[in-house]
Parts: sequence; C-alpha cells; structure tokens
Amino acid sequence: MLMLGIDLGGTDIKFGLVDKSGRLIHKTKYPTHAHLGFEGVMQRVAEFAREVIASHDVAGIGMGVPGPMSSALGIVYEAPNLPGWENVPVRDHLQTLIGLPVVLHNDANAAAYGEFWAGAGRGCSNMVLFSLGTGVGGGLILNGELYSGPDDTAGELGHIPIDYNGPPCNCGSRGCVEAYASATAIRRIVREALAKGVETSIRIPKGEEETFGARLVYEAALAGDAFAKQVLYDVGKALGIAAAAIINILNPERIIYAGAMIGAGEFIFAPLREYARTRSFRRPAQRAQILIAELGADAGIIGAAGLAFQAFGC
Amino acid sequence: MLMLGIDLGGTDIKFGLVDKSGRLIHKTKYPTHAHLGFEGVMQRVAEFAREVIASHDVAGIGMGVPGPMSSALGIVYEAPNLPGWENVPVRDHLQTLIGLPVVLHNDANAAAYGEFWAGAGRGCSNMVLFSLGTGVGGGLILNGELYSGPDDTAGELGHIPIDYNGPPCNCGSRGCVEAYASATAIRRIVREALAKGVETSIRIPKGEEETFGARLVYEAALAGDAFAKQVLYDVGKALGIAAAAIINILNPERIIYAGAMIGAGEFIFAPLREYARTRSFRRPAQRAQILIAELGADAGIIGAAGLAFQAFGC
Repeated sequence: MLMLGIDLGGTDIKFGLVDKSGRLIHKTKYPTHAHLGFEGVMQRVAEFAREVIASHDVAGIGMGVPGPMSSALGIVYEAPNLPGWENVPVRDHLQTLIGLPVVLHNDANAAAYGEFWAGAGRGCSNMVLFSLGTGVGGGLILNGELYSGPDDTAGELGHIPIDYNGPPCNCGSRGCVEAYASATAIRRIVREALAKGVETSIRIPKGEEETFGARLVYEAALAGDAFAKQVLYDVGKALGIAAAAIINILNPERIIYAGAMIGAGEFIFAPLREYARTRSFRRPAQRAQILIAELGADAGIIGAAGLAFQAFGC
Repeated sequence: MLMLGIDLGGTDIKFGLVDKSGRLIHKTKYPTHAHLGFEGVMQRVAEFAREVIASHDVAGIGMGVPGPMSSALGIVYEAPNLPGWENVPVRDHLQTLIGLPVVLHNDANAAAYGEFWAGAGRGCSNMVLFSLGTGVGGGLILNGELYSGPDDTAGELGHIPIDYNGPPCNCGSRGCVEAYASATAIRRIVREALAKGVETSIRIPKGEEETFGARLVYEAALAGDAFAKQVLYDVGKALGIAAAAIINILNPERIIYAGAMIGAGEFIFAPLREYARTRSFRRPAQRAQILIAELGADAGIIGAAGLAFQAFGC
C-alpha cells in the first residue's frame, strides 16, 4: 500500500508514490501554470494525481504547500507564488476531486519530515532541518513528531536573530540569519563588495546580478580566491551561531542542512561546526550531529507521503 | 491523594504537598546545609520529606535539582551550588530512603511545568517560560508536555544570541540575552555607567556592588531618572528580541516571565512587547500572549509535584 506525496510550488507540482518504508517508487513533475488561479491549479493537481495513482493501491495523499496555512483546517491563507490562493480550502477541495483522504502541511515542514522519516534524520527523535535557498527555511521534529505549532509557523529558522542591529531582513526585522546566509544575502554581499572594488576573481555574468548562485562564489573559493573564501566563511559562521541558538533552545540530536548551498562543503561547514560548538553549552553541543540532507529535491514529496502515512495510520 | 514537590537549591530545600488540581496544600522550607555534601544533604531531604508527608496520603515525589542532570537516569551530573554532587544517583537514592517513587527534573523545567499546570500557562498547550534572575533561564512546554530534550538541557533561553559580537556571556559565548537582561548584566551596566560619571540618581549602597537588585534601578526609573529608564528599556528590548526568536522558532501560545525583574513592570514590558511583535512574523506574533508568571517562588515545588502526577499516572 502506498501514499501519494505532492509538493506544490509556484513553478512545478511534484508527485511521488512512496511505500511505508519511505521508499520512493515513482516520481514525476508537471508545470504548475500558477496563472490559472486556485481552481485551475487544483484541477491540474487532481488530474495529474489521478494519472500517477492509476492502478496503484494508494490509500491517501499528503501535500506540501508554500506559504502560511493551517494543517488543522486544511486551508492555505496565502501563497505569494500562487496568485489567487487566499484562504482557500485546499484539503477538502482535493479530497472531493480525488476521493482520497488528504493531509496538508507547509512545504518546509513536509521536507523536514521527509529527511526525518527517510533521510539524514532516520532513527533519531529530535531533529532540526535548515533549508538554505533563496531564503533560509526550516522544520522541527521533536519527540519523533513534526512540531509545527498552533499556526503551522514554527520552524522559521531563517529568522533567528544573530545581531539585532544587523542588516535589514525581508521579514521586516534586522540581523536574522537569513540576512547573512541565504542565496539572496550572498548576492548582496558580493555585489556590494564588487561595487567597492574588492580584490576578487568573481565576475557576475551579465544579466545574472539577481540570480547568480553560491556556486560562483564556491568555484572562486576553490581556486583560492580569498574574498570568496571569506564570504563562505561568514555564511558558515552565521549558520553556526543560529545552530548554537537551536542547540541551547532545543537540544536536538541532529541538525541537518539542505539546499544548493551545501555544495560549498567545508568552506561553510568548517566555520559552522566551530561556531555551533563554541557558542553553545558543552553537553548539548556534543550531542548535536551536524549533517547534510540526503533526499535533495525529493524530501518534500517523501515527507508529504510520510505525513499521510502518519495521519491515515498505516 | 497528593504528591510531594521538592525544589532543591544551594541555600534552601523547599517542600510542597500538592493535590491533583495543582493546589498547594502545605509548604515549608529548610536550609540545605550544602557543605554536608551529597549523603548529608540527601539525609536532610529524606528526613524533612518524611516529616512533611507524615499522615498524608502521598503517592510519589517530584524533585527539581539545579544543574546538568538526566531525568531519564535520575542522575545529577554536577551542581555548582552543591559541593560533592557529581554524577550522583539522586532519584534512586531518594526512592530507597523514602520508599516512594521519585521523578527528577531540572529546577527550571519544573518551574516551567508548574506555571503550565497551575499558573499563567493553565489551559494552553505550547508555552515558554523565561525566568529572570541572576541569570536568565527557561523551560518549554510543547504539545502539552515538558520538552527537555535528550540531555535535559533544552530551554536554555538565556543563551539565545541577540548579537554575536555582543558582550561576553558567562556561558563562554557572546551577546546572549542573559548578557543584557539578567540581574548580573544590569549590575554591570549600572556600575560601568556610574564609573563613567553618567548622570543618574542611582547610588549603589556600600558593599552591595555585587548584590544590588533591579529594584534600585526600578525605583530610580519610577522617580523619573532617565538613565534608569533607559537601562530597563534596554533590558525589555533584549528580552523582546529573544521573544521574537522564540516566536519564529516555536510559535508558542504564551510567553511567560518569572523572577524578581518582572516587578519593573511596563518599564520592561512595553519595549519587550514592541520588539517581540515587530521582530517576528505577524501571525505567530498575534498568537503569542506575553504574560507574567503567577506562582512566584512556589512554581518549582508545584511543577515538581505536577511532574510526579504525570509520571505516576494519577
């Protein structure tokens, strides 16, 4: 018996059939066509879901959605990348369209649950996922269960302050770890340094000022560029201080990092481990293993399916 | 049927008989005589406990202990204010001495559970306690249960960093909220300002340089002293930024403040609420009620007894 995991994004809808051991049996994805609005996108989700399920024995559906939502009510309050998704009853609507029970979660929480259930968090009970992308997101597993809080907003780990006088953050606060360690922050830091004439081999390709990735910085660091190394060191340091906060607050067994940025390897992880350890209490710091995520882009569909197994008790 | 709650400190041992609704039936305290060492102090605990229990129908004992410990193993690893307490089997020893089941917890966690069970946290499921004293401590209640982590070190809320370049903290890190908002921090800030000749009506009584309390600052603020008001504002601001971190990470329903410092009232709570709200996400910030603890110095014994009710299932 299988569950269908769905990871709904502004660009793609990903589908995965998952067995109860967390193995991904089949996966596929289709463009979202977000401009179709709530009804149109839901029709696509249902149509593709039926296609994927086809002759399989599927007992239920777990779906991860981007943006503020209520897992208890099955409602998405808003989704910045999905026009028209405002206070929409996603769970009940999908249940009606497909005739299978549906459980709805925030996409970052679904990905965290995926790593916990079938990835780098397997076998532990208390785990924290930091997801490093355009922003910094996260999710918490406490006492063997997803902890999402009464508003499903727990685990906003990008918005741990590390310097209350620090640079402005997109969230409206200042000095959040996201303002130091997201792809957006790296781009800002590199652009500002280049504008100041800092000595570096980094050259931003024409037209990629807003899109170039940490890879550009990583490759320069690999070639010995001192500025690039410092940029990545500072990212790791900021993440290490946020990890220390999490160690002191939650005493997790594992802290797991996902997202494109983890490709920068020791340039980031050496300072990350150092600051995580030296800025937190000895005993919980010794407990907390710092690890790299294992499921990559599949974490969301696997986790959503896992949450369906949990909800529909198989 | 009652439980006995014990709050063991370096100065006093507090005892409380508590009923299953969380009502404190009887309380008393005796000096610890910490110099007697582990065996000597345990003999005193057992002797006074027997006296308190006397003819009551007591089913079990909950005890809060200061310092790193394991609730699962019932062992205290170390207790800075209790000489000779190193890796001592407190739970099993007390069980043998008294012949009743014993559950052991960290004292800050016991106090947090007390407020949750019978104080300002009554009726909610997700609650965070900040305890403001010589240091800043805390405890977490998540999904209706004490969350202490695998090493019982979760909830070290005084050691949330708010400025990674900030003043050194006793824990070895920098810029922890404790370095801004503990009684120790306030004393340092006031002493340094007086040494610099800042204009203020605050005068530290002779010999009280290391012991004067926030009350001295509060009274000056009440009399209109601008420096004193600023000191308390900065304490509230630091606590508000730490509260924002907790709101973003844990999405709690209530954040509760205990300890002598809460006597400073709006001088602290006005900036606290402002920073908690403006530095965190809207939805969880609206959810989180900021409240004052209700049980005062009894939180520890009531919470320890509550944890005994929970452990011994009545």
